Amino acid sequence: MGRLAREVAVIGIGQTRFDEHWNTTFRELGIEAGYRAMEDAGISSRMIDALYLGNMSAGLFLDQEHISSMIAEVVGLTEGQVPSTRVEAAGASGGLAFRQAILDVASGLNDIVVVGGAEKMSDVPSSVATEFIAAGADQAWEGLFGATMPSLFALMARKHMHDYRTTREQIGMVAVKNHRNGSMNPLAQFQREITLDMVLNAPPVAEPLGVFDCAPASDGAAAVVLCDLKTAKDLSEKPIKVIGTGQGSDSLSISNRPDITSMRATKAAANRAYEMAGVKPKDIQVAEVHDSYTISEIISLEDLSFFEKGDGGPATERGDTSLNSLISVNTSGGLKARGHPLGATGIAQITEIVQQLRGDCGERQVRDARFGLAQNLGGTGGTAVVHILEVV
Amino acid sequence: MGRLAREVAVIGIGQTRFDEHWNTTFRELGIEAGYRAMEDAGISSRMIDALYLGNMSAGLFLDQEHISSMIAEVVGLTEGQVPSTRVEAAGASGGLAFRQAILDVASGLNDIVVVGGAEKMSDVPSSVATEFIAAGADQAWEGLFGATMPSLFALMARKHMHDYRTTREQIGMVAVKNHRNGSMNPLAQFQREITLDMVLNAPPVAEPLGVFDCAPASDGAAAVVLCDLKTAKDLSEKPIKVIGTGQGSDSLSISNRPDITSMRATKAAANRAYEMAGVKPKDIQVAEVHDSYTISEIISLEDLSFFEKGDGGPATERGDTSLNSLISVNTSGGLKARGHPLGATGIAQITEIVQQLRGDCGERQVRDARFGLAQNLGGTGGTAVVHILEVV
Repeated sequence: MGRLAREVAVIGIGQTRFDEHWNTTFRELGIEAGYRAMEDAGISSRMIDALYLGNMSAGLFLDQEHISSMIAEVVGLTEGQVPSTRVEAAGASGGLAFRQAILDVASGLNDIVVVGGAEKMSDVPSSVATEFIAAGADQAWEGLFGATMPSLFALMARKHMHDYRTTREQIGMVAVKNHRNGSMNPLAQFQREITLDMVLNAPPVAEPLGVFDCAPASDGAAAVVLCDLKTAKDLSEKPIKVIGTGQGSDSLSISNRPDITSMRATKAAANRAYEMAGVKPKDIQVAEVHDSYTISEIISLEDLSFFEKGDGGPATERGDTSLNSLISVNTSGGLKARGHPLGATGIAQITEIVQQLRGDCGERQVRDARFGLAQNLGGTGGTAVVHILEVV
Repeated sequence: MGRLAREVAVIGIGQTRFDEHWNTTFRELGIEAGYRAMEDAGISSRMIDALYLGNMSAGLFLDQEHISSMIAEVVGLTEGQVPSTRVEAAGASGGLAFRQAILDVASGLNDIVVVGGAEKMSDVPSSVATEFIAAGADQAWEGLFGATMPSLFALMARKHMHDYRTTREQIGMVAVKNHRNGSMNPLAQFQREITLDMVLNAPPVAEPLGVFDCAPASDGAAAVVLCDLKTAKDLSEKPIKVIGTGQGSDSLSISNRPDITSMRATKAAANRAYEMAGVKPKDIQVAEVHDSYTISEIISLEDLSFFEKGDGGPATERGDTSLNSLISVNTSGGLKARGHPLGATGIAQITEIVQQLRGDCGERQVRDARFGLAQNLGGTGGTAVVHILEVV
């Protein structure tokens, strides 16, 4: 075990702008991202062997399950009865869908597979959205007692500040950096820089976290085209190889974990991905990490072994995670500024890494990017998935 | 494409009784099925490399998404951060989870994988359950106009009766047969025989279908342990090999299909599975087919090429699908009598086929069963998945 039977590469990417799309349906978001990815790959829908979809809660947000069939239909795949499969793990739905697509190609069953992620969150009032998002935490042991997702991350932030002297300012600097990056990403939901003062004086959500510490609710979709390496070299001038995939799980409730300043699921996923890829954290030039809350970027920087435990805050303050510094983190703007349409996030992380490794990122391009990493979380860390990609 | 890089076999099965489990939680159902499957396989949770789960609507029924983490935790897998992934495609969720587990092992990534299916449907009033089940049909083009799942299958029944002279009695005989089989299955929800008179005179649900033409809402879970064939031979005296997997999709709404007396998704899935397995329909001795409604068994008998188009009703009337006749169909009682906890159904179909191929089915045992087939549907046929298993 532990080795894939076939090598897999990405040959196409597509994304809608992440935003509040009041006049666009879930179907239309899926169509736009899907067709952009196919166009980018230079393939037609007839060439697609299978479709995977990451989506957290179309059931709750839209009263619609079984979206695998719905999206397969609107992108023209049901005439050929192309298999279509939805994967769900709260905010990690996209990353897990990407992984299932990799395993499908690696297994030898299919050659060309499209994987998409989509979510439509703005059709319900934000208090209702907060409730639906909390369905990614433990309803029996957290939700029932009134805990929402931001309140759980606020507990992690307080503990991290206590145990490692992480400052409120360092946590806030994650948002400042990611908004700066987002200002250079035309598909980001927020394309405006913010100051540390704005973060620190923003209305509180769950102290110490304020509104600028929380990723927004978003509508959006993203898609990538994957295939076996041989087909990739035939079809693409610049395929990007997937060299590592790792996934881990932890208890759904944070109360059942030995430590809430670190996520065991991320550590396990990262170690598995590094081992498969044969690379070390210091080899990575560009990373998309799961900053659903500012504190989760700091925790992830440590769990991914980019920095020592407790150094996530200081590293952010030193600018070590800024564009073209030691390691460029969340060049897309991250969940914070690019937006966070739950199931689409894990796929949008991959599209950013692919774009960076292709050298197509314009003013937010990371110099000499050879290895890129994406880390996607479900809930408070009950699921984590890490992928490592490399220029072929 | 089209060939799996590694052969895969089932070495353990487990199932809760399907029933209205008023005093049992979703977690407890998952624990029972999971541990039964591990015990049957003779493995401990430490040996498990990955977990897959089929579930349609814990989000709607229990306000709980992200159940992959929850179930991994309660069966002892989060201490080792074992990857856990939920798959959803309405009533086909279980069958698709089984397929993803197969691809995982075939890809070379993992050796021993558990796949479970679970649903808890009785905690909401039945009118609400009807609404949630309709989330597997097209909400924009069907649900919004008042169509429920039984009403859509009623349309198929009427058209099948019109086009092929299928009689109301033939349709009803599916329920009589499946209840007879269910009476021999100690884990079935309904273990009582019924008469054709009872079916024909039952309260109408959506004419021509009455209550005995509809599978019940159920609580329950089922699980199987899969591994690569080499490991299977080391661990098990009687591994059952997966020799074919096929999946297909069609439009979510029946209005977008050329014909509602047949399901293109089943035909495509079946053809793919037969081709991979290298067997023909006449080679199959025992089949579990998706009788969410009596008419869907008749349609499936035809789409799986067990009988000519239009002969599904007459074949049932002739007794060709009864236990130890031409082909034994739904020996477990099917969805109709065994029960239909949406996401668990596709896995329970596999546990029945494995039990039959092992020769462990007691009074409902099919003689000389060598090849078994399971067909699992999502919604009205937007998704279909077919698996073929063989005694090693």
